[in-house]
Amino acid sequence: MDPDQVAKAFVEHYYSTFDANRAGLANLYQDGSMLTFEGQKTQGSQNIVAKLIALPFQQCKHLITTVDCQPSGPAGGMLVFVSGNLQLAGEQHALKFSQVFLFNVFLRCAWIDL
Amino acid sequence: MDPDQVAKAFVEHYYSTFDANRAGLANLYQDGSMLTFEGQKTQGSQNIVAKLIALPFQQCKHLITTVDCQPSGPAGGMLVFVSGNLQLAGEQHALKFSQVFLFNVFLRCAWIDL
Repeated sequence: MDPDQVAKAFVEHYYSTFDANRAGLANLYQDGSMLTFEGQKTQGSQNIVAKLIALPFQQCKHLITTVDCQPSGPAGGMLVFVSGNLQLAGEQHALKFSQVFLFNVFLRCAWIDL
Repeated sequence: MDPDQVAKAFVEHYYSTFDANRAGLANLYQDGSMLTFEGQKTQGSQNIVAKLIALPFQQCKHLITTVDCQPSGPAGGMLVFVSGNLQLAGEQHALKFSQVFLFNVFLRCAWIDL
């Protein structure tokens, strides 16, 4: 499978899960995973999901603008850079966002099987 | 040295070099390095620098807004996410930009010695 297609499929899956059922993102993180959100670091799947659930907005819709990916090393890692707009319920204007994902081939396989 | 300080020092060094002497960025890339710029991938230090030199603007100034960093794996890698404004000579309004760096501890040591 083309790495760019893998990256796009992952990103679509991640944000559709985020928008519909944030708790479901737990399957996409591992105990060693780290999230940096607006300067704050959170480690571990459960802590990361708790952080995301506690964000000060509930209903939201991510609209993806760009997805760029690169191989991240000889072990089959992948680096994905996403930019887009975040539409919050009841807000007229969307917020711009960008996010980076770095994952290894094992995680990549894991979410393909979901 | 604190990883966040390392990341900030690297980012300051990268953009001051970019703004003053783009050709000098060759020392910060390796033959295996890859740059993705607006969807186009370029590989190798010399090709990356040629791409950056050929961008359709000459004088510019990067103004950094945020620098976030994370360890990227057991081998001592580092993932750095940068956002900021890019002021071009003769343009009234700055452009927003974001960039991601992923490097290993050997490259990190290399540029500390520069």
